[in-house]
Amino acid sequence: MNNEQTFQSLRDHLRQTSLIEATAALAEWDERTGMPRGAADFRAEQVAHLRGLVHSRNTAPCLSEWLDQLVQWDEASDPHSDIGATVRLVRKDFEKQTKLPQRLVEAVASATVRGQGVWDAARKADDYSLFQPALDEMIGLQREVGQAIAEDGQSAYEALLNEYEPGARVAYLVDVFASLRSELVELIGEIQTSPRQVDDRLLKLAYPIDAQRKWSHVLAEAIGFDFQRGRLDETSHPFCTTLGPSDCRILTRYESNWLPTSIFGTLHEAGHGLYEQGLPADWYGLPPGAYASLGIHESQSRLWENLVGRSHAFWQHFAPQIRDTFPGQLADVSVDQLHAMFNRVEPSLIRVEADEATYNLHIIVRFELEQALMSGDLSTDDLPVAWADRYEQVIGIRPPSAADGVLQDVHWSAGLFGYFPTYTLGNLVSAQLFEAADESLGGVDQLTAKGEFEPLLTWLRTNIHAHGRKYSADELVQRATGKPLSARPLIKSLRDRYARVYDLS
Amino acid sequence: MNNEQTFQSLRDHLRQTSLIEATAALAEWDERTGMPRGAADFRAEQVAHLRGLVHSRNTAPCLSEWLDQLVQWDEASDPHSDIGATVRLVRKDFEKQTKLPQRLVEAVASATVRGQGVWDAARKADDYSLFQPALDEMIGLQREVGQAIAEDGQSAYEALLNEYEPGARVAYLVDVFASLRSELVELIGEIQTSPRQVDDRLLKLAYPIDAQRKWSHVLAEAIGFDFQRGRLDETSHPFCTTLGPSDCRILTRYESNWLPTSIFGTLHEAGHGLYEQGLPADWYGLPPGAYASLGIHESQSRLWENLVGRSHAFWQHFAPQIRDTFPGQLADVSVDQLHAMFNRVEPSLIRVEADEATYNLHIIVRFELEQALMSGDLSTDDLPVAWADRYEQVIGIRPPSAADGVLQDVHWSAGLFGYFPTYTLGNLVSAQLFEAADESLGGVDQLTAKGEFEPLLTWLRTNIHAHGRKYSADELVQRATGKPLSARPLIKSLRDRYARVYDLS
Repeated sequence: MNNEQTFQSLRDHLRQTSLIEATAALAEWDERTGMPRGAADFRAEQVAHLRGLVHSRNTAPCLSEWLDQLVQWDEASDPHSDIGATVRLVRKDFEKQTKLPQRLVEAVASATVRGQGVWDAARKADDYSLFQPALDEMIGLQREVGQAIAEDGQSAYEALLNEYEPGARVAYLVDVFASLRSELVELIGEIQTSPRQVDDRLLKLAYPIDAQRKWSHVLAEAIGFDFQRGRLDETSHPFCTTLGPSDCRILTRYESNWLPTSIFGTLHEAGHGLYEQGLPADWYGLPPGAYASLGIHESQSRLWENLVGRSHAFWQHFAPQIRDTFPGQLADVSVDQLHAMFNRVEPSLIRVEADEATYNLHIIVRFELEQALMSGDLSTDDLPVAWADRYEQVIGIRPPSAADGVLQDVHWSAGLFGYFPTYTLGNLVSAQLFEAADESLGGVDQLTAKGEFEPLLTWLRTNIHAHGRKYSADELVQRATGKPLSARPLIKSLRDRYARVYDLS
Repeated sequence: MNNEQTFQSLRDHLRQTSLIEATAALAEWDERTGMPRGAADFRAEQVAHLRGLVHSRNTAPCLSEWLDQLVQWDEASDPHSDIGATVRLVRKDFEKQTKLPQRLVEAVASATVRGQGVWDAARKADDYSLFQPALDEMIGLQREVGQAIAEDGQSAYEALLNEYEPGARVAYLVDVFASLRSELVELIGEIQTSPRQVDDRLLKLAYPIDAQRKWSHVLAEAIGFDFQRGRLDETSHPFCTTLGPSDCRILTRYESNWLPTSIFGTLHEAGHGLYEQGLPADWYGLPPGAYASLGIHESQSRLWENLVGRSHAFWQHFAPQIRDTFPGQLADVSVDQLHAMFNRVEPSLIRVEADEATYNLHIIVRFELEQALMSGDLSTDDLPVAWADRYEQVIGIRPPSAADGVLQDVHWSAGLFGYFPTYTLGNLVSAQLFEAADESLGGVDQLTAKGEFEPLLTWLRTNIHAHGRKYSADELVQRATGKPLSARPLIKSLRDRYARVYDLS
């Protein structure tokens, strides 16, 4: 076959793989939205079979032959062209997959399923010792995975991190996170000692779920989520999943006595959804149509949730509508009040309930601990105390129990080491992108106050979405903002917002 | 491999095929419940790919090797044992599939997709000439299919009929349908000339959809539909689909100004669902865990919809509840009134809106016409006039347009020749089974009047559901009722019910 034909074969192969992957994603979406409970065993068998089909397609010998030919092709020489990026990244993925012995893949799969079950039981029993053996096993297996896929001189941890955040360097993150940490601790201190405090009891009244549901649709649609190419549903642990080039499903959660859950959950997932809907549909299932990294994905959700959704301008625009939607609760609420309530800061123990300022401190603790676990500097015997010590030092509260401490997250039980930092990366990137968009558009807040979200979305489409996976996260940030990633924009943005809410100097 | 091992290989192979088939069914369920509109093209590609995987698994050469070995096995010698039926029926399916040339399979698939699109446009335009070329193509292709799979001396039409109703003989159906037709025409005549007529305007008031939705769940649960192993959702064209051994999805439709649509639609689909939930789950994806025929499937839906759901006893039991559920509309309704309204007879042009008495006449017309189309005795040029003539003769009304006549059903455009008679077969079987159950249980109506549906369900589980596909429809009816299928029980049941409603002698 000539190069064009070989490339077409590669493309067809990957496209067909994506058909099966999307089917597995549909099966999982259905499982988390409305599948009858009795169907769980068969569904697990089904998803495992589909994932097996995908794995064997991703390691098929024909891929290796085609790629060996295509790396010689002139058309593939630009690593950031559609063709060049496809050949380069599919090759990288293929090599990584074939580096993992089948035995290890199966051991990880089995440990992941068991680990989550054990974790769940341990958390319910508030008993870390039930979980520790599973955690030891998982650390051992993930260390093996990291070592197997590490490139020259890389630590196992960095190799795992790169599974979620290709190209990220641990040393660089350590620096950036350190400056972020000291600035955040200082900012939170100022907030806590400010004489002005925020009363958010209004948000704890009874909010009818039906009205919240309609309101969530209004918000998602307002910022540009396309309901012709997506849906918004309800689930217990919100997420966003993509079932095809024009089928993005976002899921949110409604709490009757805490309104922010659905508002910011919806804006967050809709932010993920806007990214997925903005990826080049023609390249669905191939690198030019895929997301760049988890950090970039999270930057899109955080940008809409926080930089837009928690801005004063946003509530200037939406105040009349939210008053009309919840007349029994919010008829007399002012814009300042809404803005203040949605930006209340209060350090607490649980990551998923954290406010925007303390959230990153939760991540930084995990980032430090998981590096030490992976390198062997910290044993699982010492983990609960290390966790509690770090919380006390960094956040100022010591967890009274394992359930509220080291057992609170599912991630490690599922083998996700190197995953947590992508949350904070997302926050950092979101602020840096917003700053650049703000400059380029001559002020995003002015547009937001008028309910005009399209210019910002177009800026993101052009600078981030359109590139798929052709550039790394670092490259995307550099190209879009003209600067390497730093903590400054996030700190500045938080400081500005909280200065207004808490009357800081 | 020894016979046990070979059988296990066969079983594993079919089980894995069922995982993929169930995935395709999920994709179709999702498409008809809530898939975003923009996702249609990708979904079509996905389902086609999954169906292709299933087809290649169903025609895999290993199957032929295994089956050649297993037909010699002693354990497989009883054609109605689990093993014997599996070997026998998988072999039959395999031989049939391999008789069809790939070219023909693809031509049919393509014509089916196009045909339905053309039919839809033609019906909207009320212009038969738009549809005629597609119909000609489809008749030609299906004739070829029928000829390819026909067994010795069989007509192409009977071979097609056997795709849906294995073992059914056209000559026998012609006889049974003829006696049914003359009896029905006579019965309808008596009803139309009866001095007592039924006023059902109460059912055309405004019925809130939310209340109808809850009421539908109540009814489905009451007759035994297991919501741990199934769901009830909403769609525009109700159906029942099975996504795994413990995952049966039924779908119904709500009309705000016509209450019977949701009540009898739900009972009908729940009847299908009870059959699916009663099939042996261990044998899911294999003949002992599969339904026997479309006629048997329809007998289960019709039994619950009509023999149970339209009985006087059913409304004796449910009258208090329906009055409470719709107090604004039905607070003062009597049992007799409910029973009469739900059994009103009025000949009309459209099959899907037909009452129970005239329904089978609609089928008989189609059965006659499609035999003639398939044999070549009737040309598509003459079809619209032949259709109108038959409606006038059999039902007493001449369609004023093609849309209300020959263009009303999707079936022929989708290549479904030989499918219509299974509807009437289902009606015949439902009445014959009900009669046998009634005798065996000492009166089903007495149980129904007390809201006790489990004895009847258990009788159906034992006599029909538990056997899966191990017996043909004829064999099942003979075993369950002690008699070959006849029109007598259906006619008797209709005559008894209408005698009460219309005061016939």
